Amino acid sequence: MHTTSTFIDRLNAAWTTRNSLLCVGLDPDPAKFPAHLSGGPDAIFEFCKAIVDATADLACAFKPQIAYFAARRAEDQLEALIAHIRERHPEVPVILDAKRGDIGSTAEQYAVEAFERYRADAVTVNPYMGRDSIEPYLAWSDRGVILLCRTSNPGGSDLQFLDVGGERLFERVARLAAGEWNHTGQLALVVGATFPAEIARVRELTGDMPLLVPGIGAQGGDVEATVKAGRSSAGSGLMINSSRAILYAGKGEDFAQAARAVALATRDAINRYR
Amino acid sequence: MHTTSTFIDRLNAAWTTRNSLLCVGLDPDPAKFPAHLSGGPDAIFEFCKAIVDATADLACAFKPQIAYFAARRAEDQLEALIAHIRERHPEVPVILDAKRGDIGSTAEQYAVEAFERYRADAVTVNPYMGRDSIEPYLAWSDRGVILLCRTSNPGGSDLQFLDVGGERLFERVARLAAGEWNHTGQLALVVGATFPAEIARVRELTGDMPLLVPGIGAQGGDVEATVKAGRSSAGSGLMINSSRAILYAGKGEDFAQAARAVALATRDAINRYR
Repeated sequence: MHTTSTFIDRLNAAWTTRNSLLCVGLDPDPAKFPAHLSGGPDAIFEFCKAIVDATADLACAFKPQIAYFAARRAEDQLEALIAHIRERHPEVPVILDAKRGDIGSTAEQYAVEAFERYRADAVTVNPYMGRDSIEPYLAWSDRGVILLCRTSNPGGSDLQFLDVGGERLFERVARLAAGEWNHTGQLALVVGATFPAEIARVRELTGDMPLLVPGIGAQGGDVEATVKAGRSSAGSGLMINSSRAILYAGKGEDFAQAARAVALATRDAINRYR
Repeated sequence: MHTTSTFIDRLNAAWTTRNSLLCVGLDPDPAKFPAHLSGGPDAIFEFCKAIVDATADLACAFKPQIAYFAARRAEDQLEALIAHIRERHPEVPVILDAKRGDIGSTAEQYAVEAFERYRADAVTVNPYMGRDSIEPYLAWSDRGVILLCRTSNPGGSDLQFLDVGGERLFERVARLAAGEWNHTGQLALVVGATFPAEIARVRELTGDMPLLVPGIGAQGGDVEATVKAGRSSAGSGLMINSSRAILYAGKGEDFAQAARAVALATRDAINRYR
């Protein structure tokens, strides 16, 4: 299946078969793990595997954040985690949240990292260096590239909100991503849930392009406003990410069931407004 | 020495003791290695170590590009390489070229990766996500953060050249980096050598802030124009990076001596215009 369908196809299939727009973010912080997992050599893998297995039928995507693995020399555990998802939950695409961005020759190396080493279905990329910094990823025609557009953090406005000839910088990024940069149809965008009006604006500029929306849960974004602003014409089009609120819902041996309960409630809260 | 002096102090010392503004970029591509190194389990480390030992007295900094290591599961070789530089050439600061950029909680993880795991003296960071995406790195007060400003690739103009209220986006980044974002004095900027007029403009906006300038050598930037445009009032202020032209100067067993010859010629060419 994976060799013949694209990331966007697989995402569309997951939206339908799961009846879910929920993306489960995997930001494993060992300081927050349940006591019984602490200190094991593969604690990061074991923690994430339990979350994945408990939520896979509720998720349209999984999004491991690479910094949490790299800070702890746990690249091997990230590889094992993605291999586990691909083997046991092959219908759920994996987004490697890495926010890479570099000149073409270096971007080729980052694409090998994301798509060959980790075998991710899609990777997040920073647009600051422009079109030729994005192009090398598109050589993997069955994968996706999710460009930062409007980020959910307070400083996101510092540059993204600047007026560039009658529109804001993030709007320009959205137009480029929906236009000439997307000649292969592999692009999607990151738009933070903390700004529903801006999600609506990006939706307006990008047709039915998939939007990855972080910022609900711990970051405070509103589910109803996010869904109403961002849903596509088909009532999907969104990967609404929640990480900490799901991962750390419980602190005991039943942490994965606690995570499932939050994931289920989040999925259903999202569906209420589609 | 390392615990009490800052990245900027160490860079200043290296400029003086080496009489050099040359930064040697370490972008190891095994396909280009000399035949006698091919296939060894630590070929990446061995190749880079030979280059480092042959050029350390000519360099004001070393800049390993992490993608070349990550694409080949060679994080351990990157750790070993930086440990080698710190032990054998402690007077040459190490810049981890990683171009990270993420929300605060994730940026904290990337800072641990760069500064604790790899023990780099400085790291390159993308400014697109704004001030709070940079702040976590500054908690390591003896390290440096080198923000992308004007990059050397063709697509660099796509966003960086947009007019934002009477100045271009990269000028705004330069002003922010030289102003309120630099409250700890730990920032520097990346400005590509392919655009001397823009180097001059960034120099004008940033006083004597250190500038990392990639793009001479394989990317075609002009040494004379770069130095004249970018030198500080003291005739330094620049880390002029060359990677491929040095690394792959020779293809035989004497590749490190060939690299040294190019590094020496490049250092001297730079010094001619200080």
